[in-house]
Amino acid sequence: MHTIGQLREKFEAYLDAEMVQKPPLELYEPNNYFLKIGGKRLRPALLMLTTELFGGNPDEALPAALAVEYFHNFTLIHDDVMDAAPLRRGFTTIHEKYGLNTAILSGDVLFIKAFEYLGHVRADRFKPLFDVFVKTAVEVCEGQQYDINFEKQGTVTQAEYIDMIRLKTSVLLAGSMKMGALLAGAAETDAQLIYDYAENLGIAFQVQDDILDCYGNAELVGKQPGGDILQNKKTGLMIEALERSGRANDPELAGWLARSSFDPDDKRDAILAIYDRYRIRDFGLEQRDGFIARSMGALDGLQLPASHKAVLAELVKHLVLRDF
Amino acid sequence: MHTIGQLREKFEAYLDAEMVQKPPLELYEPNNYFLKIGGKRLRPALLMLTTELFGGNPDEALPAALAVEYFHNFTLIHDDVMDAAPLRRGFTTIHEKYGLNTAILSGDVLFIKAFEYLGHVRADRFKPLFDVFVKTAVEVCEGQQYDINFEKQGTVTQAEYIDMIRLKTSVLLAGSMKMGALLAGAAETDAQLIYDYAENLGIAFQVQDDILDCYGNAELVGKQPGGDILQNKKTGLMIEALERSGRANDPELAGWLARSSFDPDDKRDAILAIYDRYRIRDFGLEQRDGFIARSMGALDGLQLPASHKAVLAELVKHLVLRDF
Repeated sequence: MHTIGQLREKFEAYLDAEMVQKPPLELYEPNNYFLKIGGKRLRPALLMLTTELFGGNPDEALPAALAVEYFHNFTLIHDDVMDAAPLRRGFTTIHEKYGLNTAILSGDVLFIKAFEYLGHVRADRFKPLFDVFVKTAVEVCEGQQYDINFEKQGTVTQAEYIDMIRLKTSVLLAGSMKMGALLAGAAETDAQLIYDYAENLGIAFQVQDDILDCYGNAELVGKQPGGDILQNKKTGLMIEALERSGRANDPELAGWLARSSFDPDDKRDAILAIYDRYRIRDFGLEQRDGFIARSMGALDGLQLPASHKAVLAELVKHLVLRDF
Repeated sequence: MHTIGQLREKFEAYLDAEMVQKPPLELYEPNNYFLKIGGKRLRPALLMLTTELFGGNPDEALPAALAVEYFHNFTLIHDDVMDAAPLRRGFTTIHEKYGLNTAILSGDVLFIKAFEYLGHVRADRFKPLFDVFVKTAVEVCEGQQYDINFEKQGTVTQAEYIDMIRLKTSVLLAGSMKMGALLAGAAETDAQLIYDYAENLGIAFQVQDDILDCYGNAELVGKQPGGDILQNKKTGLMIEALERSGRANDPELAGWLARSSFDPDDKRDAILAIYDRYRIRDFGLEQRDGFIARSMGALDGLQLPASHKAVLAELVKHLVLRDF
C-alpha cells in the first residue's frame, strides 16, 4: 500500500508529463503555469488511495485523478476572476497575469481536458465515473452560486451555510473518492459509504478552517487570524453568533457588522469577545465533531479490512484535527 | 423523413421541457433567458437529421442535440464576455444583463449540463459520441484563441484563417453530424465522410458570410454591409487583398488600415474599390466553391440511398448559396 505522499509523487510526475505543449500556446501555457504553482493534490491523491484500498492499481487511476485536479483548478481560475483575487497560493492569478479573456478561455479548455482524461479510464468503468463527475461538477457550480448569493442575502441559516460548503468544497472530495472506489470495482453500497465518509470529512474540514481563521496560531496558519471576521463573512460561527446575540437582544455584533470604518484590530478583538460571550468556539468544535462522527460512522459499514479502515480513520485526524 | 423545420420544432419542444427550474435560480435563470432569445438550432436539427438519414430515430437523438446546443450557447455566453458584446441576436447579453460573474458561472454550468445530457444517449453509443464531443469542444476553444491571436498578429496567412474558421465554427457542425451518424449506428467510414462533408460545408458557410458582409444586400442581411472592413477584420478577403496589393507595391489598403480617424462610408467605399481592383470578390467566390466541391465530394463515398444524399446536397445550396 502506498502512502499519500507516494501517491502524490506519482501524480505530480503524471501531471508534469501530460502538460499540453502544443499550439496555441496562448491557450495552454497559462494553465501549465497555474497547475505548477502548487496545491496539495489532495483530491487526486485520495482518489488514487481509494482505488488502492479497494484492491485496484493506483496507476490506473491516474487519468481520473488528473480529471479531478484539472476540474478543481478550472474552478479556481474562474473563482479567482469572480472574487477579483490578485493572488492564489502566493502567486499572481491568471486574470491578473494574462487578462480576463485568458482566464475565461484557458479555464474553459482545462475543464474540457478534464473530461478528455476521464475518457481514458478503462472502458467498463467509464460511464459510472462520468455520472459521478458530472453530478459533482454541477453541484460545485451551485455551491459557488450560493456563496455569491450569501453576500447579498440578509439572513443565512446554519443549514444553508452547511449545504453551501458541502456543495462548494465537500462534494468534489467525496466524488473523487467515490470515483476511486468505482474504478477499483467496489460495490455501489461501498462506493456510497466512501462518498458519505468524504462528504462529512470535507464539511468538518471546512468548519475547522473557519475555526482556525478565528483562533488559529498566526505563525502556523501563515496569516493573521480574523480575516473572515474583518470581511463580515457569513461563516457558521458568525451565523450562530448573530442568532444567539439576536435572541439575547444584544445589538453589539450587528453594530460592528454595519460599521464601514473601523480599526481592524478593534473589530476583530470586539467580535472575538462577543464570540466568547456566546460560546461560539465551542459551538464550532461541536459542529465539527458532529461531522467527524458522521464520517467515522460511514466507515463502520464499509466492506474493507480493519487495517484499510484505519487508514481512512487516520486521515480524518490528519486532515481535520490540525492546527493549520 | 422529417424536414429540418419539423426537427427544429421537436427540438424546441424538448429544449423548453428541459429548462432547469430549480434553485439556485440565479445560476439557471440566465441560461434559460439566453436559450430562449433564439438561434437557428441548426446544429441540433442537423444532428437529428443525420440520425434519421442513417436509419435512426431522431427522437432518440434529442439528448445529444441538446448537448450540442447547450455547448454552442455556452461558447456564445463566454465569447460575448471576451468581445465585450452588448447584444446577441438583438437581445442584451448575459454579462450586460446579469454581470460578469453570472456570465462566467452560468456559462460553466451550461457546459456541464451539455455533458449531462450527452450521458443520456443509449449506453452502447455513448463513448464514441463522448469522444467526438470532447475533441470538438477542445478545438472550438483553440479556434477562439486563434481568433483572439489574429487581432494582434501582424500577418495572417490564408491557411491560418481557414484553419481558424474551421476550428471556431466548422468542427461543431461537423461533430454534431458525426454524432448523429454514430448514434444511428453508421459505420466509422460513413461517420467520417459526414464529418468531412459538414466541415467543408461549415467553412464554405463562413466564407459566404464574409462575402455577404462586404457585398450583401443591406435589407436582406439586416445590417449595413462593410462591418468587417470598418473593424479591420482579417477575413480571408482582407488577407488576400493585403497580399495582392502588397505584391503590386500598392500602399493604399495598408494606409486605410493604419488610419485611426475616418468617415466610415469613405473607408468602406475605398476598400471595396481596392477589392475590385484585385478581384477579391471573385477570389472569395472561388474559395467558397472550392469548399462546396469538397463537401459534395465527401457525399460521393457515402453508403446512403441517392434520395438521402440529395437531402444533404440540397442542404449545401440552402445554407451556403444564400443572399443573407
